[in-house]
Amino acid sequence: MITNLLLTITEQEVVQDVAKQIEGIKGDMGMLWMLLAGILVFFMQAGFTLVESGMTRSKNAVNIAMKNLLDICVGSITYWFVGYSLMYGSSDNGVFFWSGLMQGEGADLFFQTMFAATAATIVSGAIAGRTKYSTYAIFSIVMTALIYPIAGGWEWNSGWLNNTEGIMPAEFIDFAGSSIVHSVGGWAALVAAFIVGPRTGKFIDGKVIAIPGHNQIYATLGVFILWLGWFGFNGGSQLAWGGSDAIAASNVVLVTNLAAAAGGLGALITTWIWYGKPNLAQTLNGVLAGLVSITAGCGNMSDSGAILAGLVGGILVVFSIEFIEKKLKIDDAIGASSVHGVAGVWGTIVIGLWGIDGDKGIGLFNGGGGAQLGAQFIGALAYAVWAIILSAIVFLILKNTLGVRVTPEEEEKGLDLVEHGVVAYSGKRNRGESNN
Amino acid sequence: MITNLLLTITEQEVVQDVAKQIEGIKGDMGMLWMLLAGILVFFMQAGFTLVESGMTRSKNAVNIAMKNLLDICVGSITYWFVGYSLMYGSSDNGVFFWSGLMQGEGADLFFQTMFAATAATIVSGAIAGRTKYSTYAIFSIVMTALIYPIAGGWEWNSGWLNNTEGIMPAEFIDFAGSSIVHSVGGWAALVAAFIVGPRTGKFIDGKVIAIPGHNQIYATLGVFILWLGWFGFNGGSQLAWGGSDAIAASNVVLVTNLAAAAGGLGALITTWIWYGKPNLAQTLNGVLAGLVSITAGCGNMSDSGAILAGLVGGILVVFSIEFIEKKLKIDDAIGASSVHGVAGVWGTIVIGLWGIDGDKGIGLFNGGGGAQLGAQFIGALAYAVWAIILSAIVFLILKNTLGVRVTPEEEEKGLDLVEHGVVAYSGKRNRGESNN
Amino acid sequence: MITNLLLTITEQEVVQDVAKQIEGIKGDMGMLWMLLAGILVFFMQAGFTLVESGMTRSKNAVNIAMKNLLDICVGSITYWFVGYSLMYGSSDNGVFFWSGLMQGEGADLFFQTMFAATAATIVSGAIAGRTKYSTYAIFSIVMTALIYPIAGGWEWNSGWLNNTEGIMPAEFIDFAGSSIVHSVGGWAALVAAFIVGPRTGKFIDGKVIAIPGHNQIYATLGVFILWLGWFGFNGGSQLAWGGSDAIAASNVVLVTNLAAAAGGLGALITTWIWYGKPNLAQTLNGVLAGLVSITAGCGNMSDSGAILAGLVGGILVVFSIEFIEKKLKIDDAIGASSVHGVAGVWGTIVIGLWGIDGDKGIGLFNGGGGAQLGAQFIGALAYAVWAIILSAIVFLILKNTLGVRVTPEEEEKGLDLVEHGVVAYSGKRNRGESNN
Repeated sequence: MITNLLLTITEQEVVQDVAKQIEGIKGDMGMLWMLLAGILVFFMQAGFTLVESGMTRSKNAVNIAMKNLLDICVGSITYWFVGYSLMYGSSDNGVFFWSGLMQGEGADLFFQTMFAATAATIVSGAIAGRTKYSTYAIFSIVMTALIYPIAGGWEWNSGWLNNTEGIMPAEFIDFAGSSIVHSVGGWAALVAAFIVGPRTGKFIDGKVIAIPGHNQIYATLGVFILWLGWFGFNGGSQLAWGGSDAIAASNVVLVTNLAAAAGGLGALITTWIWYGKPNLAQTLNGVLAGLVSITAGCGNMSDSGAILAGLVGGILVVFSIEFIEKKLKIDDAIGASSVHGVAGVWGTIVIGLWGIDGDKGIGLFNGGGGAQLGAQFIGALAYAVWAIILSAIVFLILKNTLGVRVTPEEEEKGLDLVEHGVVAYSGKRNRGESNN
Repeated sequence: MITNLLLTITEQEVVQDVAKQIEGIKGDMGMLWMLLAGILVFFMQAGFTLVESGMTRSKNAVNIAMKNLLDICVGSITYWFVGYSLMYGSSDNGVFFWSGLMQGEGADLFFQTMFAATAATIVSGAIAGRTKYSTYAIFSIVMTALIYPIAGGWEWNSGWLNNTEGIMPAEFIDFAGSSIVHSVGGWAALVAAFIVGPRTGKFIDGKVIAIPGHNQIYATLGVFILWLGWFGFNGGSQLAWGGSDAIAASNVVLVTNLAAAAGGLGALITTWIWYGKPNLAQTLNGVLAGLVSITAGCGNMSDSGAILAGLVGGILVVFSIEFIEKKLKIDDAIGASSVHGVAGVWGTIVIGLWGIDGDKGIGLFNGGGGAQLGAQFIGALAYAVWAIILSAIVFLILKNTLGVRVTPEEEEKGLDLVEHGVVAYSGKRNRGESNN
Repeated sequence: MITNLLLTITEQEVVQDVAKQIEGIKGDMGMLWMLLAGILVFFMQAGFTLVESGMTRSKNAVNIAMKNLLDICVGSITYWFVGYSLMYGSSDNGVFFWSGLMQGEGADLFFQTMFAATAATIVSGAIAGRTKYSTYAIFSIVMTALIYPIAGGWEWNSGWLNNTEGIMPAEFIDFAGSSIVHSVGGWAALVAAFIVGPRTGKFIDGKVIAIPGHNQIYATLGVFILWLGWFGFNGGSQLAWGGSDAIAASNVVLVTNLAAAAGGLGALITTWIWYGKPNLAQTLNGVLAGLVSITAGCGNMSDSGAILAGLVGGILVVFSIEFIEKKLKIDDAIGASSVHGVAGVWGTIVIGLWGIDGDKGIGLFNGGGGAQLGAQFIGALAYAVWAIILSAIVFLILKNTLGVRVTPEEEEKGLDLVEHGVVAYSGKRNRGESNN
């Protein structure tokens, strides 16, 4: 008996020890996946630089590069210093979290930092070509240190959007940030573009003048890099690997790709029908809109649901860009408010329409009732209100103090020369027929 | 006695449970590797876009971007919808497999999708500069939905090329697709270039007119991105990680790099001797040919065998491009049929010359006899016949219905303006000296 | 009793077996991380190509691409053939190691190969625009086969810099190669630039003539790619994953990013104050300097220590570039000797100032005394002496035999035409308004 008892205990110990070690390994794998995902998200900064510079004029390309560098440099420092704590801190006052300065570490902090930098970067494209660099620098600090982290905590920490005891009819779902990152960035971009005002020559006598980008290949390469990075953005948001997490994260990457493809096709076909020719810039925007459209729901969509979400996002973005430009007369230089804002809201709402939770439908159209749709509306609205008010405050203060835009003469010369004293491209004709 | 017996059983249970958990972890690691490899293969689409646009004229750059976007967007949807099942389905009718629509999931489907998109993309470069976009769109659908998946199942599912009971003297080896992806793409590219016909001005009075690419840096960046992606293409084809699989997949990546390096040096030195100057475009083609040359044998080559395979591939591609252009008078705009087709056949055959299976030589020159060489010939031939016949059928139908090429006037204007209504580059001189 | 004894043994066996399997899994994860890190480091070659071509004139862009292709192609072969053994061989003669030809395998050899190619590539940018291709090819072989591997073994194998029984006051710390890769490359770049001499027209009547790069967007994309690759460069140098290694490697990536961000901000702010405008090229150099500054200490720095190290590196590089150009009158075309050499020394030394070992300060300013600082000085000095002497010998022999530079007329035409017979960019104006 005694012998038997002793043995049983030690067996349990062995089993427990093994279980602990297996858990440790799963933790290690999760850390590896998050780190690699964070590295992919980092690379999105290069994608944003290429998309934004390619879709705007060559005289402002250096300025765009400098803004994106600022976002990642400033964002890395501010989010480490204060942002992480405001978002993932342990004490909650209802609006923001807090645990003291310089919290967060390792792969987790690294991954989250890249999200903060992304949120800031979305804004820079919209206001390209006329915004003061110093002013943008201040906005970038506020965005990565305050606006984004506080918003993020509501959902990704134990904030009010997860609390069904309060006003929420269901837990808000935003797996990887259609609302938290993209619509916050997109709404801020819209507000910024409105406050800064249009580029000189964009609207003449009520007519919209097209200002074509200077390099479509940059824009294309940029979108491919963003698409690549998005696999980390969405997939890494599983925050773990191993067992069901590995399957879930793989599926996230799969549906992310399907939605991107459907978004691209949606815009391609729409422009083919609407304009008579399939348009590259809009197809690129369609891919991005497809990606934004699946970002909230990538853990809550079937394959075909993801394709439909992306397809609608890709169609929507074509008309949204026209609406903002032609009806609202707001000059968003690269359509960031449509790609990230409008598609971000759509990606949030669609979970309430045909989202799933495992095998169970949670949307209005697949038997889930209206609770989730209600929760998604509240969340999308809360992020819109937050982003619009906060960015309006920041840009209005900046407008009335430092000023937000360069003079028309400086705009004519180009921000590269005026703000940075250089040009993006030099040399004669780039053809090699003479010394350059 | 009884106590002892009980304990032995429970120990076995513990051991079995641990073994099961360890297997689960290995499965998780394999899934992580395949997902990451698939992400790398995805990025090859950006590489193809840059290589193809850089090596052709600027007036067709937007069109090339649109074709590559189409390949990945269409391929992602069609391969998910029908292609995966035709390739990896469970029931086999001798020609193709089938399990019903919308099969495949997670990391596996994601990884395989990227291969299908790659096979389609190979063709777009060869017929750049004169092909109708609508026509290409239809070919892209057929390629990713039918031509590639059916071909793939013969070898990567339990198809006839693995069945030594039939005509095969040995199991055909094509680890990552020298034949299945690259030569199928390459032969289709050759057929397409032949049927579509040369670009206007390419052959004048029997003389070959050089049409230089418009941006060598794009081409170089594109090749680096393809090289990068190829580590996933070949390494991920191990389809697993952990224990001997980890060692095998690492070795695959190593020999892939050695063959690429040797291919680049092969072409570099060949052009230095042959043309008097080391040529960039051919060195880039040599790197790609080296990569294609090791794609079938990357699990069956020693380090030095891989270097030799790549070196020969890199030399071969220089002469193959000249032969197809000057002797066959076929205008393959970027040499895709040589890089993927000819090097793909070479990479398939070389396993029969000095391939290894573990420590054992299986090639003609290292004591393995002729059986493997025979199998490799049969496989290479089967894929050539399949790709040539199927793509000829598709392109001939298209030629006689929708038409395959734009008018000479449209070709003169450039496909970017004619098919998409935009130009790739705008602005004055890109020098910044005036407002653009 | 006997029963009990038997059981105890078998339990131990189970525990031992589990421990062995868990170790195996950790080994597999470590191999996966090293392989992926190596793939990231490979991609740095694309980054170097873009930075070097973007920061120099368009007439030499093809030549730069050809040099970088040579580095990775030659480096992959020579390091596999002889370099790995000279660095990681088992027998030590005091200067170099040796185990015979063609040693090394799998993920380890792959990862180390990419480091050797990086060391060579650093030099090519400094001597851009006037150096003979054939001469550079020979240097590239010597660098990857001899200079770098021998230097590496001193620290990363069981060489004299690790041996505190000799002259070393403490074990030299260079986690990922601030000295071994970057300062060796940087010093060689300085020596090469000095021996080859300045580009024609760089110094006229004692005045320094600015020669602006031809494409700032290439340079920016290149820096983003290098930053991306550096996560593999530094993080992969943990050489393992799992348990404390996973945490350590994640932290390495985190501090690498913080230092890069601080370096970028350091240069950005310095140029804003110093030149009146924030300068893109210098901000890019600042990011790279920040990365180099943390490369030695990324396993021995707190977050704030890393930020300070990077910040100082980013400031330093601005003045170092001016000093080498204006005071030393050496024409380093892209500032490689400052970015890699000076920042490399700084990154090595800073460990002796505020480095940590776990929780313990090992620097002069955090209670660690002067021993580590002494060790860091000795190491930095040893690598400087080695790199300067060896590269001086190689370049002086080349200068007096083959010659190191093209004629002024050839330089005027551009190396692309003269050495490779092509130009980087062709076509009319790249605007699409006419056929090109």
